[in-house]
Amino acid sequence: MAKVLSGAGLRGQVAGKTALSTVGKSGSGLTYRGYDVKDLAENCEFEEVAYLILKGKLPTQDELATYKTQLKGMRGLPQALKDVLERIPADAHPMDVLRTGCSMLGNLEGEHSFDMQQQVADRMLAAFPSIICYWYRFSHDGVRVDVETDDNSIGAHFLHLLHGKKPSELHERVMHVSLILYAEHEFNASTFTARVCASTLSDMHSCITGAIGSLRGPLHGGANEAAMEMIERFTSADHAEQEMMGMLERKEKIMGFGHAIYSESDPRNAIIKLWSEKLAADVGDTVLYPVSVRCEEVMWREKKLFCNADFFHASAYHFMGIPTKLFTPIFVMSRLTGWAAHVMEQRADNRIIRPSAEYVGEELRSVTPIASR
Amino acid sequence: MAKVLSGAGLRGQVAGKTALSTVGKSGSGLTYRGYDVKDLAENCEFEEVAYLILKGKLPTQDELATYKTQLKGMRGLPQALKDVLERIPADAHPMDVLRTGCSMLGNLEGEHSFDMQQQVADRMLAAFPSIICYWYRFSHDGVRVDVETDDNSIGAHFLHLLHGKKPSELHERVMHVSLILYAEHEFNASTFTARVCASTLSDMHSCITGAIGSLRGPLHGGANEAAMEMIERFTSADHAEQEMMGMLERKEKIMGFGHAIYSESDPRNAIIKLWSEKLAADVGDTVLYPVSVRCEEVMWREKKLFCNADFFHASAYHFMGIPTKLFTPIFVMSRLTGWAAHVMEQRADNRIIRPSAEYVGEELRSVTPIASR
Repeated sequence: MAKVLSGAGLRGQVAGKTALSTVGKSGSGLTYRGYDVKDLAENCEFEEVAYLILKGKLPTQDELATYKTQLKGMRGLPQALKDVLERIPADAHPMDVLRTGCSMLGNLEGEHSFDMQQQVADRMLAAFPSIICYWYRFSHDGVRVDVETDDNSIGAHFLHLLHGKKPSELHERVMHVSLILYAEHEFNASTFTARVCASTLSDMHSCITGAIGSLRGPLHGGANEAAMEMIERFTSADHAEQEMMGMLERKEKIMGFGHAIYSESDPRNAIIKLWSEKLAADVGDTVLYPVSVRCEEVMWREKKLFCNADFFHASAYHFMGIPTKLFTPIFVMSRLTGWAAHVMEQRADNRIIRPSAEYVGEELRSVTPIASR
Repeated sequence: MAKVLSGAGLRGQVAGKTALSTVGKSGSGLTYRGYDVKDLAENCEFEEVAYLILKGKLPTQDELATYKTQLKGMRGLPQALKDVLERIPADAHPMDVLRTGCSMLGNLEGEHSFDMQQQVADRMLAAFPSIICYWYRFSHDGVRVDVETDDNSIGAHFLHLLHGKKPSELHERVMHVSLILYAEHEFNASTFTARVCASTLSDMHSCITGAIGSLRGPLHGGANEAAMEMIERFTSADHAEQEMMGMLERKEKIMGFGHAIYSESDPRNAIIKLWSEKLAADVGDTVLYPVSVRCEEVMWREKKLFCNADFFHASAYHFMGIPTKLFTPIFVMSRLTGWAAHVMEQRADNRIIRPSAEYVGEELRSVTPIASR
């Protein structure tokens, strides 16, 4: 009756339609609604790209100004949500904090009709940096930060809350680039989670809460954190090479390289690498950036594996003073746009996603009375 | 490159293997690990079936006693979780409450290693009735219930917390049957959500939180609530027939009938219908049960549509004094066993679930400078 698919994990199987992005269509490219991600990262702010992904077109100057003003006005958190965040311990996984914060927001400001979907997505976009930073600063520094800043962008808002001061122009620009690079990536596991949830006609908060839970998995998000943990152990480029050769010989897993879909290169790598280099010059780094470059060379020379989007994100975030455990939450702040747009796309042409399974269990048997088992 | 699937929603497509259940394998049956659900519902307590699904075999008398003692000891909630539940308003969607409660539990008692998976699943099984009832009684009655009861079963614990007194033997038995009937159902949308999340190697709380979000959708859970809302409007069997004929004529959606997989009947219906009849006799009902029976007759006569598991659950739950809005949370308390077992099964033979999409969007285009848009 059911057709057996060729690969595990539905690999290479079309599970639906999308107009949002192409991944590796011509071997290596990534486009959002037809625009090359490189073009967007060079010429746009993140809010323009969020607008593009969520609302379908690049905004005019006026539309962008209005959108940014709207998002600025949505940064505040209800007291009940702050109370919840204050009860999450400092050693919690930051992705669990975001998952819980998003879910709690759904109790306080539910999506009562799909007519609200754009507004709910925008609210999350504005509120997620507030949620993660409110928890982080309270649990780690004992400070109740005022999350309603007048910063001009989502990235600046995040850095401001985290560091207690407005970021430099360079840091704000890097946040734009980073959030653009992570914004959308077709039917990856977290996006597919959001679409399966959306296919039951559930609410936006459920879809995004589920997606956060999937991105949390070490096979999905978190590669930039793992990359950071590796490179910060290396004291020089030569030390990095020596250690990596040992890791390769011992067949240890090295994070931040290769990709399930891209076969030759990850188009996002060259972009974030350039910004990591600029940040290194800005802070006067002579270790982490050369270490990262050497890692890239060794992996290509030894394994023909290229850096993916995550690898140079590690050093870039580190140079901006971002704690490693907050790397994946930044991914959420960005990918939220893709998730929400996929939810809207699924709703617009929906059938509940309900595959079948191949049964490999016991044949029919009778229940033995408990006294005789 | 990618293979286009025949049906939307992955219908009829094998997306993985399972040894947990068969659904409609021979037209209408439902088995859990080889046992017919009818056999289980007649001869077992829910805790035996949870043990079967989670641990792989039916327990002996001693194993069951030990398991029930263990679950009893896990009913308490940490103060931080109670604080969170107290901040969720009375008009919140109860599924959002469970989603948030499960997510919060993950912050307080995380699954730090997959070695903990059985323990984490058992903890949720014991704690979910506490979570939903603590919130319900606090938000609706202003009472902080003591969730650590000595009731002999999960169903009795739930009814005790809800009503403030121990349930009758009949009610406890019906809860066993109901929880058994809803425990597992192959690759339905919520279970598939849990498996997609598990395929990233994320934690159990993320998987279950995501599954709750999917079950919340009106195309998935909630059919018993919708059935209740319909039948309680009917004042007699004749009135029900007259109203339903009108609804059919106006092509209105009628919930609780038909099924995506079963084609001739839902094997769970005859079982719960029998218990609904017993409960009707017990409370002296002369309306709701006859109304339900007439609805079943009309739908079969007019549309050849049979009652699914949800339809007679509506009257059964109602006869036990359960508020309609808590019907789907009971589904969670039960299906949790299937979800958790699927997570474990996915982990045991994992590949990340990452399908492809058919691109139907814009061709490659260049970013127009914002001033010229």
